[in-house]
Amino acid sequence: MKLYHSPKAPNPERVVHFLRVKGKLDAVEVSELSIMEQEHRTAEYRELSPFAQVPVLVLDDGTCITESRAICTYFEGLYPEPNLMGETPKEKALIEMWDRRVELMFFIQFATWFRNAHPAMAPLEQPQSPEAAAKGERNAKSFVKRLDAHLGEHEFVAADRFSIADITLYVACGFCAVMRWFPHKELENLGAWRERMKALGFAG
Amino acid sequence: MKLYHSPKAPNPERVVHFLRVKGKLDAVEVSELSIMEQEHRTAEYRELSPFAQVPVLVLDDGTCITESRAICTYFEGLYPEPNLMGETPKEKALIEMWDRRVELMFFIQFATWFRNAHPAMAPLEQPQSPEAAAKGERNAKSFVKRLDAHLGEHEFVAADRFSIADITLYVACGFCAVMRWFPHKELENLGAWRERMKALGFAG
Repeated sequence: MKLYHSPKAPNPERVVHFLRVKGKLDAVEVSELSIMEQEHRTAEYRELSPFAQVPVLVLDDGTCITESRAICTYFEGLYPEPNLMGETPKEKALIEMWDRRVELMFFIQFATWFRNAHPAMAPLEQPQSPEAAAKGERNAKSFVKRLDAHLGEHEFVAADRFSIADITLYVACGFCAVMRWFPHKELENLGAWRERMKALGFAG
Repeated sequence: MKLYHSPKAPNPERVVHFLRVKGKLDAVEVSELSIMEQEHRTAEYRELSPFAQVPVLVLDDGTCITESRAICTYFEGLYPEPNLMGETPKEKALIEMWDRRVELMFFIQFATWFRNAHPAMAPLEQPQSPEAAAKGERNAKSFVKRLDAHLGEHEFVAADRFSIADITLYVACGFCAVMRWFPHKELENLGAWRERMKALGFAG
């Protein structure tokens, strides 16, 4: 299998953390490309990833899988241990619910802020919209406060166990540094949760 | 189990179609509420759905599950037949990939257009943004054209079989009527796919 990866970009990082926790990083050949250099927009890359998304996982039979969470679903099926997406129907549903909340209400909101506000993003987001940036910032900051309250009562994001939802949140929090925003330094419970993640081998 | 549902709203419709295809509509007690009357924003409803999302599924043990796709994941585990989310790791990944593409690149983009442009949405989306509406419209229309090309070569959206991704697309296409947009009437392959869905029992 071959994974097209762009280091430091948050979506590929989710997949790489997921594989690392599974102990299966060596199961994939990694090919790096630069999003900033727009290497994901070449005709050659679009043959693998028609919507120019990074990462893409290319299976040995040539099947191309995009969407980070779908790639994680593939790995969860291939390498069931340690379980990261839930054992029972209820646990699976609660983990997917929280993973989606973190992704849709925080990660994508933050990304909207970043892509519309950061000068380095101007070539990728044309035109940038200050209004969209402000709305993304407001939504991300509002969600993170509520998440901090949740983490005051729960050790992990979903179903009171470590899961893919923690990985998504960890990557999203780290990504915030590009706007010099460090939510885990502002919010106590989020900070304590991040220390628990470090104890599980998450670096940085 | 109790499902809080708002008829005609697209997210609850996804769950209801999913259950209907499973033949399990009678497994849930349905409680209807009106989003237009803002019944989803009451303190009482937020006890069940803290982010005021509709639908929410309340299990017999009191567990509340929001996020339509997570609710479908729960039902897929409880009622495995007919399979709607994939049998093998590869099929599961391809179905999730396409379901996410339809949701993120079409459904959410269309919803952004609708919420920011339609006068009836003004009380729910404050302030409405013509700029956000235009971007959502552009993204939705661009994706649907590419999806039409995909459906010229594939009978169903994902993995060459009927799945949750077809349900998501069906609901999203129907939802477009609120902006008097009928993509399945404009695009031939999408129209033919919709006829196949009708033959499978999808109405309207």
